[in-house]
Amino acid sequence: MSARLDAQIAFLKEADHLKAVLRASRLLDDSRFENSAEHSWHVMLYALVLVEHSAEPVDIARVLKMLLLHDIVEIDAGDAPIHGDVDHAAKAAAEEAAAERLFGLLPDDLQHEFKSLWVEFEAEETPESRFAKAIDRMPTPITNLELGGGSWIDYNVTLEQLDHRVGVPINGGAPGVWGWLRPKLESWFHRNGRA
Amino acid sequence: MSARLDAQIAFLKEADHLKAVLRASRLLDDSRFENSAEHSWHVMLYALVLVEHSAEPVDIARVLKMLLLHDIVEIDAGDAPIHGDVDHAAKAAAEEAAAERLFGLLPDDLQHEFKSLWVEFEAEETPESRFAKAIDRMPTPITNLELGGGSWIDYNVTLEQLDHRVGVPINGGAPGVWGWLRPKLESWFHRNGRA
Ligand SMILES: [Ca+2]
Repeated sequence: MSARLDAQIAFLKEADHLKAVLRASRLLDDSRFENSAEHSWHVMLYALVLVEHSAEPVDIARVLKMLLLHDIVEIDAGDAPIHGDVDHAAKAAAEEAAAERLFGLLPDDLQHEFKSLWVEFEAEETPESRFAKAIDRMPTPITNLELGGGSWIDYNVTLEQLDHRVGVPINGGAPGVWGWLRPKLESWFHRNGRA
Repeated sequence: MSARLDAQIAFLKEADHLKAVLRASRLLDDSRFENSAEHSWHVMLYALVLVEHSAEPVDIARVLKMLLLHDIVEIDAGDAPIHGDVDHAAKAAAEEAAAERLFGLLPDDLQHEFKSLWVEFEAEETPESRFAKAIDRMPTPITNLELGGGSWIDYNVTLEQLDHRVGVPINGGAPGVWGWLRPKLESWFHRNGRA
């Protein structure tokens, strides 16, 4: 059991670095940018609170596990801002290599379990992954509405882009939430001459 | 549904403040103190990786939910360092008031569900709460061993105090993990003339 625990703890120590990966989104008090570890905690809380709004019935344990693991690849691959210029093939390759190295620190059974959950999340082909992807898109618009634009200003985002990048996944996984959010976004973009 | 979503999002926005609650523990790279939101993410990862070491069979979904919620009261009550001087009655009263206000932002059903999970965690009377409490104690000793003492130096902690404050809960919830950790702690405290 000792070698197994050595490997488990080695992975948990390496995971600490997610606390140093900064995102394009800010805290709600505008004091600093958000890191991917605290973001992961926050989206799990979003999932637990909003699970009744899922488009399909979901196993909340699997949703929480996916969101717990979903950004760990960023330790090696970095965070790709949703509104930034991204080479999607290069990003996918970097994240695949990161998943191999990082989950590879674990004993084989856990490596395969975690890798599978991450692959499932990225593929968005199951009810849990569709809901988890919807939830992952929620906090930034909520924060940007509060902060007078936030990363929408930084990346010069239009309502049409937001409908595509944020609306499609949220509406797919949690349509009632999108129905609640969309009028607030439309109102903000119109008021600010950006739509 | 709109009033219900208003309340759910109000709670999720308030929860953002957990990212500004600083703990006595540091990041593993010693760059800064850790906040309670990223700590909550990290202990959920510890739980998922180490669940096989639980003293009793546990429902991992309930463990993850408890750890997701366990520090939210700190938004109002602050973090009480485990090795600091604490007035336990005053702390319990402050956290109870915090749970009322914070979970009270939610619709009644969710308020009661979350409050119950937090009360269960604090009472440590179920397999899930005993394992979750054990896991909550794990990251700081791992980090302190790596950093040449960390908060043990700041708070002038002895091995005897550590056996009581950290060893009792870890050994209760995950005895195999304590069997792995204890010799490393003993060795460090002896090498550093603190035991
Ligand atoms: Ca804790």
